[in-house]
Amino acid sequence: MKRIDGRAAAEARPVNITRDYLPFAEGSVLFEAGETRVICSATVEEKVPGWLRGSGQGWVTAEYSMLPRATESRTTREVVAGRPKGRTSEIQRLIGRSLRSVVDLDQLGEVQIILDCDVINADGGTRTASISGAFIALHDALTKLKAAGRLSGDWPLTGFVAAISVGILDGISCLDLNYKEDSQADVDMNVVMNSDGELIEIQGTAERGSFGRSALDELLDLGEQGITDLIAMQQSILG
Amino acid sequence: MKRIDGRAAAEARPVNITRDYLPFAEGSVLFEAGETRVICSATVEEKVPGWLRGSGQGWVTAEYSMLPRATESRTTREVVAGRPKGRTSEIQRLIGRSLRSVVDLDQLGEVQIILDCDVINADGGTRTASISGAFIALHDALTKLKAAGRLSGDWPLTGFVAAISVGILDGISCLDLNYKEDSQADVDMNVVMNSDGELIEIQGTAERGSFGRSALDELLDLGEQGITDLIAMQQSILG
Amino acid sequence: MKRIDGRAAAEARPVNITRDYLPFAEGSVLFEAGETRVICSATVEEKVPGWLRGSGQGWVTAEYSMLPRATESRTTREVVAGRPKGRTSEIQRLIGRSLRSVVDLDQLGEVQIILDCDVINADGGTRTASISGAFIALHDALTKLKAAGRLSGDWPLTGFVAAISVGILDGISCLDLNYKEDSQADVDMNVVMNSDGELIEIQGTAERGSFGRSALDELLDLGEQGITDLIAMQQSILG
Amino acid sequence: MKRIDGRAAAEARPVNITRDYLPFAEGSVLFEAGETRVICSATVEEKVPGWLRGSGQGWVTAEYSMLPRATESRTTREVVAGRPKGRTSEIQRLIGRSLRSVVDLDQLGEVQIILDCDVINADGGTRTASISGAFIALHDALTKLKAAGRLSGDWPLTGFVAAISVGILDGISCLDLNYKEDSQADVDMNVVMNSDGELIEIQGTAERGSFGRSALDELLDLGEQGITDLIAMQQSILG
Amino acid sequence: MKRIDGRAAAEARPVNITRDYLPFAEGSVLFEAGETRVICSATVEEKVPGWLRGSGQGWVTAEYSMLPRATESRTTREVVAGRPKGRTSEIQRLIGRSLRSVVDLDQLGEVQIILDCDVINADGGTRTASISGAFIALHDALTKLKAAGRLSGDWPLTGFVAAISVGILDGISCLDLNYKEDSQADVDMNVVMNSDGELIEIQGTAERGSFGRSALDELLDLGEQGITDLIAMQQSILG
Amino acid sequence: MKRIDGRAAAEARPVNITRDYLPFAEGSVLFEAGETRVICSATVEEKVPGWLRGSGQGWVTAEYSMLPRATESRTTREVVAGRPKGRTSEIQRLIGRSLRSVVDLDQLGEVQIILDCDVINADGGTRTASISGAFIALHDALTKLKAAGRLSGDWPLTGFVAAISVGILDGISCLDLNYKEDSQADVDMNVVMNSDGELIEIQGTAERGSFGRSALDELLDLGEQGITDLIAMQQSILG
Repeated sequence: MKRIDGRAAAEARPVNITRDYLPFAEGSVLFEAGETRVICSATVEEKVPGWLRGSGQGWVTAEYSMLPRATESRTTREVVAGRPKGRTSEIQRLIGRSLRSVVDLDQLGEVQIILDCDVINADGGTRTASISGAFIALHDALTKLKAAGRLSGDWPLTGFVAAISVGILDGISCLDLNYKEDSQADVDMNVVMNSDGELIEIQGTAERGSFGRSALDELLDLGEQGITDLIAMQQSILG
Repeated sequence: MKRIDGRAAAEARPVNITRDYLPFAEGSVLFEAGETRVICSATVEEKVPGWLRGSGQGWVTAEYSMLPRATESRTTREVVAGRPKGRTSEIQRLIGRSLRSVVDLDQLGEVQIILDCDVINADGGTRTASISGAFIALHDALTKLKAAGRLSGDWPLTGFVAAISVGILDGISCLDLNYKEDSQADVDMNVVMNSDGELIEIQGTAERGSFGRSALDELLDLGEQGITDLIAMQQSILG
Repeated sequence: MKRIDGRAAAEARPVNITRDYLPFAEGSVLFEAGETRVICSATVEEKVPGWLRGSGQGWVTAEYSMLPRATESRTTREVVAGRPKGRTSEIQRLIGRSLRSVVDLDQLGEVQIILDCDVINADGGTRTASISGAFIALHDALTKLKAAGRLSGDWPLTGFVAAISVGILDGISCLDLNYKEDSQADVDMNVVMNSDGELIEIQGTAERGSFGRSALDELLDLGEQGITDLIAMQQSILG
Repeated sequence: MKRIDGRAAAEARPVNITRDYLPFAEGSVLFEAGETRVICSATVEEKVPGWLRGSGQGWVTAEYSMLPRATESRTTREVVAGRPKGRTSEIQRLIGRSLRSVVDLDQLGEVQIILDCDVINADGGTRTASISGAFIALHDALTKLKAAGRLSGDWPLTGFVAAISVGILDGISCLDLNYKEDSQADVDMNVVMNSDGELIEIQGTAERGSFGRSALDELLDLGEQGITDLIAMQQSILG
Repeated sequence: MKRIDGRAAAEARPVNITRDYLPFAEGSVLFEAGETRVICSATVEEKVPGWLRGSGQGWVTAEYSMLPRATESRTTREVVAGRPKGRTSEIQRLIGRSLRSVVDLDQLGEVQIILDCDVINADGGTRTASISGAFIALHDALTKLKAAGRLSGDWPLTGFVAAISVGILDGISCLDLNYKEDSQADVDMNVVMNSDGELIEIQGTAERGSFGRSALDELLDLGEQGITDLIAMQQSILG
Repeated sequence: MKRIDGRAAAEARPVNITRDYLPFAEGSVLFEAGETRVICSATVEEKVPGWLRGSGQGWVTAEYSMLPRATESRTTREVVAGRPKGRTSEIQRLIGRSLRSVVDLDQLGEVQIILDCDVINADGGTRTASISGAFIALHDALTKLKAAGRLSGDWPLTGFVAAISVGILDGISCLDLNYKEDSQADVDMNVVMNSDGELIEIQGTAERGSFGRSALDELLDLGEQGITDLIAMQQSILG
């Protein structure tokens, strides 16, 4: 069986990573997976959210947005409605949790790092691309902080983290769905894992029908394989 | 090992369901699981969202909110900030998707059913209680629609749906976490299943550290057992 | 003459008060008057509004909301529009003023008490039920503050306060209108009185036509009688 | 006893009415009561609110606002917070109800009249000045509609309406409080009456302490006298 | 050629300035240019925006609004939409920049002056009238500050500032367009100048077609002449 | 004299234009001027704003935004405040007016074209880059509309349009200021011209001091030269 774009079921799209994409950000990449393109940047701020002030602990958070014409038909800017959509909040929270899972916030010290993930073009998998790309921006920002002697503790990263989507299409488990596949999938799952091969987050939804435990296992096998490749790529880039 | 409230690891809290709790709603229940109390109501509206007009298809959606003192310290009303919190949107979307998974929207006809889930007291598991309770409100509303001859097609429900939380506490997998447990858990997972014993949605998060595949399996076993009991209760109530 | 629900013109609906309705709030009741049901809770906060900081004086304020299906047809949540309706603001301000009329804010000390009045079911008289019920929640919260030695002064309550609605229906003055009566009344009045039998607030509106001074007197007589009964009930409950 | 500004207790401030104050509005006045100055304008719109479409009935509504420096210290514009304050909503609703009490909405036909009351300077009694002034703007707008043959029915006004404030200051009942008096009053009441000498609306609040029935009567006597004078002035101006 | 209202091309409308128009503001004028009427008031606040705190420097800013019936057909209040329109922001920023151009913010000391420009009637040129009028309100407020010994430095005004509109109508350059002319003009330009005869701001727009450099020169000649007259008037009033 | 980045006073930054930058938009470019990078896309919508419905006329409008880390220190997303900043509205209006100046809206037919200008990196001149780039996106979208036979009239473009900034730095007139220059300039001006060498819009501001007519002329000479080069580049690209 061949997929819409000719890939095999277990084949992820080619990934391209351009580091230092933005001149001003403390860390930034253009992360491309097939036609999906996301700019991830890391901003270091000296002040933490209110509930952490005086705690000696830092924070990592994320924001996510799409350009209006990242999508096939134009998406209205969220500022027009005056509030982020539910989908946006959900994705922002997922990216933030995923990145915090590999950060020792005590080692970070009272510093906040904001990871901005802006989707230039959306062809499926934008939230998982955001996680995989934001990790590199975060790593680069922390390296600069360390070099500048501004980290209060040791190196705060405890591992690498990446994410990928998997899904069931016409009864077949597929890795890294593009937009067309995603909109036709019966089951759609996002998997986040770290460099120990352990799960950080799993979100699976039956868009049509339902799925059993063995289907879940098959999907997780695929996801694990895709994430292993992504983390290898992160490691080779970051040295 | 005994849990904070004396339960065994695989023991869910006692559930109490009061049907027809609100006089005006087309369907309504007070759903109680331990100290968690949610009022679920179903409203039938003759008009569907814009993208379904003229399609002959119906829609099921959900809204979720908490009373300010459902929580240990008072939570500011969302209207004060002028927008729902990210957490709220995320939960509303989850409840809506879960309920739609057992509704044949074509059989429903051009009718929208809104499931309002208002948390009177929050002691953990409010989103899963909302799903389990909203199903009963939905069932009752559809029964009234059918009796009134207002369903364009056959019976639109294709099964039952319920949900429960599971998590890992001090290395032990537990069913149906209360608030105190939830805030100390290393892994926290919400499971939604239907009456065929199949998964509809699974959302698992490592709040601290990470988790492997075998831990995931253990959690799903627990969840499946809890949901089976809940669906049995729904079936016995709804006849 | 018999009213829609069989009551006499001067007869109020049966009142039912469930104390300590919410486990977390410092004070809380479920206040029921006929089919009207309101959850009133009192929250004690250590910080006062900006204009009182450093004054040694406390504050009492109220918030009011209705569940979407408290009403015959569903009412959209206010957070959807992003702002409270004019009616809500008006009611919140009335409840706050009424409760402050029996509190010596200097005796309270720099503490704010928020009275949340959430209408579970709305069958007329929700704002007056909120006042009568919120007083009990406030009393219970203050009793706890006193017991904990957290009151800077003496007992801050200077009396009891309760409220009821009255109105003219087909030329006849009636006590405690339900929703159906309220929507047909020519004159509609809310009366707030204290345990000295004195007026705190009076808001009367001719919904159709106008009304003379003698009609006003008749309505006030009825209101006074209803409030006397409510305060007696408060006193018997609170000891 | 003399009041702050030398008036007797039963003496209202001098009123000055400038008709046709704005060149574009269908009706407009500058209404001055002492130092309180309000611009009232009437706008006729061919479309009614949704719930009246097709009913053959019209609508009268009001909006109220204050210039930032109408007040002693500058008041932030409501648009900065993004929503009207509770006080504004309350006043707008009062003005609208009061004016509608003298309009036969069936005679008006499907037309909406918006009464904009903009306070240029606020020295107490701005809501009652708005009502008394808006009536003249409304009358002038209706006269133009009639002259243009655009009224579907007969003359829609069923009477005149005016309003004034009364209050208790140091135990003495006073008519038409200015800002300084208003902020020191123990009881503060707004009275709206029509040209039949009947009550349309009464809103009385004990700002400090409480008040008995005889005090209420005394205040209403004063209010009645003040409104009688205002309506005489309206009648002499409008011919 | 005669213009719609009989003026010559180079003739501005008659200007009328009423000082101390509002009793509470530190400085205020009613500025009338033909039928255009703007109330400008200056408020002195002891606190500056965050970025200036501790700098020893002051700030001057402006807000602009129109009454709903300042315009031929009613304009919805901005608070209804919950945010100022783009046009309003643009005008507010222009007024603020123009006034700051003649203020030495270091001499002002850590004080903020807010210039509120509220348009009572809009017949073209409301933003330029706001600038010319706000200068007088600002001057009066500063005079009071100086008299009270509250200016930390010397006199902070470095000159006078005024503004006027110019435009091309049927190929002819005209001074001070009224609303009707403005809506038919091919080119529309606002010019702000100081008492040294130098430009502070110039904003020219081709509403239809385009314009060459010589047309621009002609318009600037007209604007310069109009502003010279306005500044002479300001100087004669302020002594 | 050499400028910060080594350019001569009359030298613009190198421009790079990548056409068809986004796969989904009807027209799109990445427009780079030095370090300033803007993605401009054109979206064709079949529906026009309300006031044009049924007029047979089309509309062209623009939206403008910056990625949070387009700037040296991170800029908060506008959706967080719930409304666009004044600066954004001002720029959007300028881009829209400029592009409409070369479109015959009657030839366009009842179609709306939205030009989204998203700044990826901001090093000065983002609004003028948006105009120059949006023209190309617009041209490409119209070419597609024409090819598809969807234009109701003839070719709706009446010319080319481009824009550039000029300013006075240390007394010297400079072309195309970068961010550092812009923040130190005494006078800052944006010039928009068409392919007939005529002015469409001119916005000049004295950020410090003021400027005379001869300085204005010098700046306009520079701007004209820069725009001539930009339009030549547009013409060579678009053939």
